[in-house]
Amino acid sequence: SGFQLLKRTLGNRSTAARFFSSAPSTPIRATLFPGDGIGPEIAESVKQIFKAADVPIEWEEHYVGTEIDPRTQSFLTWESLESVRQNRVGLKGPMATPIGKGHRSLNLTLRKELNLYANVRPCYSLPGYKTRYDNVNLITIRENTEGEYSGLEHQVVRGVVESLKIITRQASLRVAEYAFHYAKEHGRERVSAIHKANIMQKTDGLFLKCCREVAEKYPEIKYEEVVIDNCCMMLVKNPALFDVLVMPNLYGDIISDLCAGLVGGLGLTPSCNIGEGGIALAEAVHGSAPDIAGKNLANPTALLLSGVSMLRHLNLHDKADKIQNAILNTIAEGKYRTADLGGKAKTTEFTNAIIDHL
Amino acid sequence: SGFQLLKRTLGNRSTAARFFSSAPSTPIRATLFPGDGIGPEIAESVKQIFKAADVPIEWEEHYVGTEIDPRTQSFLTWESLESVRQNRVGLKGPMATPIGKGHRSLNLTLRKELNLYANVRPCYSLPGYKTRYDNVNLITIRENTEGEYSGLEHQVVRGVVESLKIITRQASLRVAEYAFHYAKEHGRERVSAIHKANIMQKTDGLFLKCCREVAEKYPEIKYEEVVIDNCCMMLVKNPALFDVLVMPNLYGDIISDLCAGLVGGLGLTPSCNIGEGGIALAEAVHGSAPDIAGKNLANPTALLLSGVSMLRHLNLHDKADKIQNAILNTIAEGKYRTADLGGKAKTTEFTNAIIDHL
Ligand SMILES: CC(C)[C@H](C(=O)O)[C@@H](O)C(=O)O
Ligand SMILES: CC(C)[C@H](C(=O)O)[C@@H](O)C(=O)O
Repeated sequence: SGFQLLKRTLGNRSTAARFFSSAPSTPIRATLFPGDGIGPEIAESVKQIFKAADVPIEWEEHYVGTEIDPRTQSFLTWESLESVRQNRVGLKGPMATPIGKGHRSLNLTLRKELNLYANVRPCYSLPGYKTRYDNVNLITIRENTEGEYSGLEHQVVRGVVESLKIITRQASLRVAEYAFHYAKEHGRERVSAIHKANIMQKTDGLFLKCCREVAEKYPEIKYEEVVIDNCCMMLVKNPALFDVLVMPNLYGDIISDLCAGLVGGLGLTPSCNIGEGGIALAEAVHGSAPDIAGKNLANPTALLLSGVSMLRHLNLHDKADKIQNAILNTIAEGKYRTADLGGKAKTTEFTNAIIDHL
Repeated sequence: SGFQLLKRTLGNRSTAARFFSSAPSTPIRATLFPGDGIGPEIAESVKQIFKAADVPIEWEEHYVGTEIDPRTQSFLTWESLESVRQNRVGLKGPMATPIGKGHRSLNLTLRKELNLYANVRPCYSLPGYKTRYDNVNLITIRENTEGEYSGLEHQVVRGVVESLKIITRQASLRVAEYAFHYAKEHGRERVSAIHKANIMQKTDGLFLKCCREVAEKYPEIKYEEVVIDNCCMMLVKNPALFDVLVMPNLYGDIISDLCAGLVGGLGLTPSCNIGEGGIALAEAVHGSAPDIAGKNLANPTALLLSGVSMLRHLNLHDKADKIQNAILNTIAEGKYRTADLGGKAKTTEFTNAIIDHL
């Protein structure tokens, strides 16, 4: 069952830690997509910091192709997909999908081809970096493979177009299982299923039905259902009302960005995509910021924290804690902050400051 | 064309004012749906305040039926729909759709049957009522008849359901026309079309195409397109980045609630639905709050401000200004506030305080 699979996949922290937590003798191979624009600079920052922290990872770098690969129908090459499939773990910088017709977006290709069914986006207030909100601590878990992202669209007659939203029991159960399992593993109290089943009774109704089924297996986790419009209103009024949120694809896209906004934006929040069989592809979900690319001005925080998510997925919690603390302390200290956070530090200065904090 | 129709409908303020702005000899008939729960109490507040302000309106009250009317397929009676059709203007309190199968929601029945194609929701900071945000001043204009609210859902096989989102050129042009016309009439600078056309290229793509066409007719209004996830992030970071926002149905549902949250919630924000031929149905979009119903505790502000929207639609701007100022001054003064705003005033005390401010 999905639950058993997850158990195997995520493992039990203490058991898995026996294998991985102290530096293993052979390093773990992980795929790295530096991405476009500021991607290479922030990927460089990750590599340096991971090296300084003695993380037992050997990066296998892959780049976006310059031509459409017919096997992926996108600029993503088959070889780079294969790399993630083999390594089972990867980290991805921003990728601006080249504009044009007849090919799939890079992000969607990765999600579809690797069956990355759950997108996990933690959002928490960074100590010392003030926004309008204090003590935000939210986890958005987004169904990542279907719903409004089916890609099925159709012109009925001129001036009338339709798109299909697809919800399946299989994908809904799978992401619900992941959400509850995550909540339990991380000592979270509550899972809220976000929906619009008052309007989309069948599709969102099925999603909720699956969440309820899974909720019954986790009596220790509180479960509630919140309509998406109301959820957005409550989030901006009082984000402390929520804990772990699970929802269909488009709602997850919206809510995760809203939550990121509460703590400062996508430049500061990690993201990790979880696939069947324990594949994990962590990614910075912000843009590739071509205007500042190559100028040593980019903030690597989102990619770094995504790298930390990847380490946690590998049960390398000691390394993850060490790096995460160094990042947070550097930001809290406030001496070296990049321009997006109101500072003057270059990417490399910020990186070095984190290394000093290790 | 839609544009000509709107011109006729909304009229030119100064011309229409000649007919309506000073009290006309025969009062204007308007339909009133007090609604359920706290509905009757807050409707009573509106009636008293409008009377005290000498608003030349004669209310025609209608109630939600106790049985499904086969002509509307809902608990809304055909007679009450006819009343709005005849009067062309109405005000609606909260209506909790009775739960059950085989009938349509009251809200959707009203929107569909009266062809209420644009939902206009202003959100502005109330002077003296502090939230995390200052100087919010946003107008959400939501397409109100199609999109994700088509009601077309279908089980393909067990465990696989789909719903149809429908976007038409006609409805998109119509709401875009309304948005730009509104922006111009109200001296607004910018219209932002909110979409997810990077994923739903055909449906949201058509919506954007229509917005662009209309934008060309309004060179004096700035036009931009913003992806919905990014829009939510920007709204919570800095709502001053936006002015008038226009969008398909579900996005409007989400964004308008988010915006309401910025200034305190749905208890404080007005809403007005605009239909073909100049019909306007203003409404409080908050819930019917059955827990406090009948206890003289409800806050009538949203219904009152919706009533003010209705007056503006009738070009009764003097009365609208007078009542709006009295409401805002009462809240700003802070002496009489209802429990939801942290005060101790009863509904009737708050109402009387507003009357004193008239
Ligand atoms: C770029 C876009 C296709 C993508 C999405 O909509 O999923 C992005 O917004 C995200 O959240 O990863
Ligand atoms: C009650 C519900 C059907 C309605 C909607 O989704 O439109 C409400 O949220 C609104 O915004 O008026």
